Amino acid sequence: MDKKKTSKGKKIPKATIIRLPVYLHYLTELAQKGISVVPSHDLAELAGGNGPQLRKDLSYLGEFGTRGVGYNVGRLAHHISKFMGLNKEQSVAIIGVGKLGMALINYKGFAEKGFKICAGFDNNSQMIGKKVDDLVIYDVRDLGKIIKEKDIEICIITVPASEAQSIADKLISCGIKAILNFAPIFLKVPDDVVACQIDLSIELQILSFYRTLLK
Amino acid sequence: MDKKKTSKGKKIPKATIIRLPVYLHYLTELAQKGISVVPSHDLAELAGGNGPQLRKDLSYLGEFGTRGVGYNVGRLAHHISKFMGLNKEQSVAIIGVGKLGMALINYKGFAEKGFKICAGFDNNSQMIGKKVDDLVIYDVRDLGKIIKEKDIEICIITVPASEAQSIADKLISCGIKAILNFAPIFLKVPDDVVACQIDLSIELQILSFYRTLLK
Repeated sequence: MDKKKTSKGKKIPKATIIRLPVYLHYLTELAQKGISVVPSHDLAELAGGNGPQLRKDLSYLGEFGTRGVGYNVGRLAHHISKFMGLNKEQSVAIIGVGKLGMALINYKGFAEKGFKICAGFDNNSQMIGKKVDDLVIYDVRDLGKIIKEKDIEICIITVPASEAQSIADKLISCGIKAILNFAPIFLKVPDDVVACQIDLSIELQILSFYRTLLK
Repeated sequence: MDKKKTSKGKKIPKATIIRLPVYLHYLTELAQKGISVVPSHDLAELAGGNGPQLRKDLSYLGEFGTRGVGYNVGRLAHHISKFMGLNKEQSVAIIGVGKLGMALINYKGFAEKGFKICAGFDNNSQMIGKKVDDLVIYDVRDLGKIIKEKDIEICIITVPASEAQSIADKLISCGIKAILNFAPIFLKVPDDVVACQIDLSIELQILSFYRTLLK
């Protein structure tokens, strides 16, 4: 999944895909501060990059900004949102309400970015039917029914590794096309499903490696 | 940080760096099952890749395996561990013991991979001095003293965005060279410090974008 084609057939590098939400984050912050125009150099610096890289990244979306004037903050934010499919609220469910699942339910950052957590699921009878703030924890056996009822589009898997693949298979059979997986196994999914993995130990191992390169 | 040079001066792509811990994960699993030799195709498939990619990845570490026989599981795991600086236990502290910090403290996967969480830090007087299992939560004002005492090498930041940069600055002034940051801001760090960021909302945005490409 290193390069993906846009609908216009242009290949977009993964590094660009990763930077686009970062630009969006800072554009939103600028807009909140009442700033309506930002020079490309300033936006690039906020995002930890440089002007030429920013201009190259944005070239995948079309042409923006006027040389010497900068980008219209609201317009660019809108275009990035639309390009990434972020211009409408998306419904999310969390499968596995252990400590990590609970932390994610309580994480305010998702709602700020337009991801509404609509349901939690667990197989522990002590959890089922409980509420976390306004969120109901459902029986994992009711996945299909609730996904349909609540029009859930994205699922986050926070179950133990041993259960993750069978949960993923079940989600896919319920029509889910996008899975964020925190369990430390690589999910096997068909070509018409996207699964991204966050393995917290692997992140530490990568960090550890970069540290050895400093020495 | 897309390409890094190894000590032998060979540039190693980031995609390889990300896959090495995955190979290590499956090698460890194979070893636990008593399997001592694995064909490259099998190991590659476990890690979600293919044989040629695996052989290319491992070429950065030197030569391994014998054509037609496969890799010695224990030997390859040892080499990857050593190459990535994972061949000894590393001490980790978590700064910010809110819900996410607490979930990370309770996450068993870190210890399994040789990362020992040695201390938690918070500025909330209700938390300071408390214990989570065997782990003491210290006052963030004692960072310097405890980092030295416990020989902490890696810090995980789980404080709010508004406090993350000042915490990072403090960690760096205490000699920390490796930071894993969960706060949704890009940390500015000097060249001799590595900071990796995990922004959970950005992961969902990237997933959302890949989903739009499926349509």
